[in-house]
Amino acid sequence: MFTFSCPVSFSITCSSSNGNIQNHGDYRVNINVNGSSCTGRPIKHHTLLNEVGVKEGSTSLSAIQFLENGHISEEKIRQRIPRQKLLVDPYRQGLITERGVGYRQTVVVRSYEVGPDKTATLESLLNLFQETALNHVWMSGLLSNGFGATHGMMRNNLIWVVSRMHVQVDHYPIWGEVIEIDTWVGASGKNGMRRDWVIRSQATGSTYARATSTWVMMNEQTRRLSKIPDEVRDEISPWFIQKQAINEAVPDKIVKLDDKAKHVNSDLKPKRSDLDMNQHVNNVKYVRWMLETIPDKFLERHQLSSIILEYRRECGSSEVVQSLCQPDEDESFANGVQQNLLTNKVLVGGNGSLGSLDINVLTYGYTHLLQTQNEEIVRGRTRWNRKICTGL
Amino acid sequence: MFTFSCPVSFSITCSSSNGNIQNHGDYRVNINVNGSSCTGRPIKHHTLLNEVGVKEGSTSLSAIQFLENGHISEEKIRQRIPRQKLLVDPYRQGLITERGVGYRQTVVVRSYEVGPDKTATLESLLNLFQETALNHVWMSGLLSNGFGATHGMMRNNLIWVVSRMHVQVDHYPIWGEVIEIDTWVGASGKNGMRRDWVIRSQATGSTYARATSTWVMMNEQTRRLSKIPDEVRDEISPWFIQKQAINEAVPDKIVKLDDKAKHVNSDLKPKRSDLDMNQHVNNVKYVRWMLETIPDKFLERHQLSSIILEYRRECGSSEVVQSLCQPDEDESFANGVQQNLLTNKVLVGGNGSLGSLDINVLTYGYTHLLQTQNEEIVRGRTRWNRKICTGL
Repeated sequence: MFTFSCPVSFSITCSSSNGNIQNHGDYRVNINVNGSSCTGRPIKHHTLLNEVGVKEGSTSLSAIQFLENGHISEEKIRQRIPRQKLLVDPYRQGLITERGVGYRQTVVVRSYEVGPDKTATLESLLNLFQETALNHVWMSGLLSNGFGATHGMMRNNLIWVVSRMHVQVDHYPIWGEVIEIDTWVGASGKNGMRRDWVIRSQATGSTYARATSTWVMMNEQTRRLSKIPDEVRDEISPWFIQKQAINEAVPDKIVKLDDKAKHVNSDLKPKRSDLDMNQHVNNVKYVRWMLETIPDKFLERHQLSSIILEYRRECGSSEVVQSLCQPDEDESFANGVQQNLLTNKVLVGGNGSLGSLDINVLTYGYTHLLQTQNEEIVRGRTRWNRKICTGL
Repeated sequence: MFTFSCPVSFSITCSSSNGNIQNHGDYRVNINVNGSSCTGRPIKHHTLLNEVGVKEGSTSLSAIQFLENGHISEEKIRQRIPRQKLLVDPYRQGLITERGVGYRQTVVVRSYEVGPDKTATLESLLNLFQETALNHVWMSGLLSNGFGATHGMMRNNLIWVVSRMHVQVDHYPIWGEVIEIDTWVGASGKNGMRRDWVIRSQATGSTYARATSTWVMMNEQTRRLSKIPDEVRDEISPWFIQKQAINEAVPDKIVKLDDKAKHVNSDLKPKRSDLDMNQHVNNVKYVRWMLETIPDKFLERHQLSSIILEYRRECGSSEVVQSLCQPDEDESFANGVQQNLLTNKVLVGGNGSLGSLDINVLTYGYTHLLQTQNEEIVRGRTRWNRKICTGL
């Protein structure tokens, strides 16, 4: 079963924002909902006293108004995790959306989040998914000390583990571009949770990427999957909405690769810098291992359009990992097609646009597997489009 | 000589903000200058029409008011690099300081920027230095398409290359903490530029880290160092100030290591994901290679307090790199000292604080070298403090 402990994420009830509210002043933000925008509308920025009683925006430790058990850790003062729902966070540039249960964060694509082609890397997008998910929980007011766990989960020794992730990228944002990331949660079966994301251009409102993921709960000590206890369900279910970023009627099944896979990278060892707050090899490292197994020649000419990850088992810091991948068809054929396309630029890229039919012709797929001594860690599927020169 | 092309950074004149100014509304920010704060003071957020005539804050491509040569690239629309100085950028949470020539950015430490101990990694701090430096140039209004180069530099085929970097970290910020990063530039000799940074806690104003760096210009085609042309000097020199983040009266000389170095990692190969916008192996990768050569046992128990990097030569994407490092004294002795300290917790960590004398006793040093077939790329020096349990 999938017992991979992983960075993420959650959201909680506590939606009546009464008590301890202080009006911190107007905060003008640009909001872009479903492509239509309202610019400069003043939104009240309510500041709540947070867990340690430090007012948001105060800049001195002397502002501490009450202590827990007469003791307060430096960490709590510096983190200021809110105990009540916040509607706007000016530092994170985040706000609660979707009638009080969704979260939107405005982000500038940073210089070190892009690759040689100046577009955001898939790893950067995955990092931003993790970040916005955690900030959603942060804003909800019930984030405990753990990595996205609620107070109820902490009381029950439960952590979130991801079982599946599906990301579709139509358009990679570029260095310096302002993007908006929406995220929300929903039910997934009886004991799971779905978390979705949509990335949009702040300038145009057009959708760049969509993602959906499935989460279950695991007992931190026994490492066994758990039902959702009633007290946790009461916390999280008020945040569930039906909307789905990706319509997956019948999700693709990913076949298991074996030693006959065409490309194999062995002896992959996590380094200290690959471990996250949970002391686990971070998700993003898995994806890097998967993609690095694909030949450079292919990566140079193609751009990932979708990835599906199915997590089977957690990976400790001392394990040695093997990465396998298999193209859907022989790459020499694929490369041959590319060569022809390169010499027939007018045909595919001359006018800077392609019909959807043409793009489909240029799509390639890979199946992936990460394993340790034949125990599966993650299965994966990637789809790729050929990079097209559009004269940019 | 050092001809390593590298991410960064610059700033330019153009300080009269007349013409095309549009008052975009009040924008309340918390400003913290030298530890004293002024919260909620309204600052006018002037929005300038930028390079492509798109108003900052506008959310539709229909806002384009003029085109260059009747043609406008999608990249320009999406990046919106300003052609005139901006005083405040709400998306980057940046503002111009130091009487119009410095830059300050407020940043939240993200979940994927911290290590297993929940504190920001050195790599994350280096990334944020690069980001704030580039945003400083961005705000100045003279950023060209290159990686931090001014318009005058572009006309002269010049790029910035870093020759030296020195970072001192007293305190690592933690996950979710709000920090302020100040950066500014100054003269360095006749043909160099210094760029400095200071990281402070937004909550307390206390200084967490300081850094200084030296930059020279290189001809992009000939790869030879260049004097600063007059037109470029005219652009950048109005931004120079004297203030220094680190007082380096006589900088330490870093000895060159040879094959007798105690720890050696060979066969280090850059991956596609290690290349930045400049198509070069990113600086941060160098630091990772250096630190990964230090034994894990040491890294687990120590925290880097300072690093000095001297760049000698650029590293292409196809080169194979060797990383050498040498501790100042025998590590078995150092480990012995740590063991004693561990068993005498009361002595060093019992009250949660240490005098400066004690800390000095616990400081260790390493000398580093990255090279390719005996050609030096970077020399380095690191200093480390033993991690102390303060009851957090």
